[in-house]
Amino acid sequence: MADNPGRYSFDGIDRVLHEKARLGILTSLLSHRDGLVFGQLRDLCALTDGNLSRHLTTLQESGLVEIWKGFKGKRPQTLVRLTAEGRKRFVEYLSLLETIVNGALSAAEPGQDPEPKQVGWSPA
Amino acid sequence: MADNPGRYSFDGIDRVLHEKARLGILTSLLSHRDGLVFGQLRDLCALTDGNLSRHLTTLQESGLVEIWKGFKGKRPQTLVRLTAEGRKRFVEYLSLLETIVNGALSAAEPGQDPEPKQVGWSPA
Repeated sequence: MADNPGRYSFDGIDRVLHEKARLGILTSLLSHRDGLVFGQLRDLCALTDGNLSRHLTTLQESGLVEIWKGFKGKRPQTLVRLTAEGRKRFVEYLSLLETIVNGALSAAEPGQDPEPKQVGWSPA
Repeated sequence: MADNPGRYSFDGIDRVLHEKARLGILTSLLSHRDGLVFGQLRDLCALTDGNLSRHLTTLQESGLVEIWKGFKGKRPQTLVRLTAEGRKRFVEYLSLLETIVNGALSAAEPGQDPEPKQVGWSPA
């Protein structure tokens, strides 16, 4: 076959980044350079407190986000921002995804779905 | 804030499709309309037999791929193809991903990473 082995292994995709909820969190933060407080991020991403906390821990441990504790008046608040490294890695991931998606979409040409040509196939 | 709640929840992203290995499998199959035999798919995606089997079961149960048993000479073979529904759903997913990626990349403008503006933030 013409294709190279491993052509579709997509090794460059980091599973820490390639997760639906974290994709939302990172996209939110990319659009808000000054960061977002916990409640804003939770609402924008429609996550529960627990889920957001869990994903933020994963992202912080990977060096993608930084978490700051502070106060608004007397009320404690948590600020979340992308790190410079996180911004770089997320943009690289998005660019890779863009390449993969464009490649896949260009391969998807409309047409009929033929029966298997080779004699002897049967449904599994 | 101007953003709508849930703006970054990305509800349209199906976790069955949005998984690194399955993204590779589906992209391979999208590029090969007549389907691929198990060994080809395994090599293209650089997966183990066990991993590929597990993901194919998930994809088949979701109606995205069809699996056929056949023979090449006396040797049993397994053919995997996208279903019409699978092709449709995968292309829709890719289009959604394209929109998300383009939106995120357009929000990522280069610049300095400022210290938090609000007084009283401290590292968590």
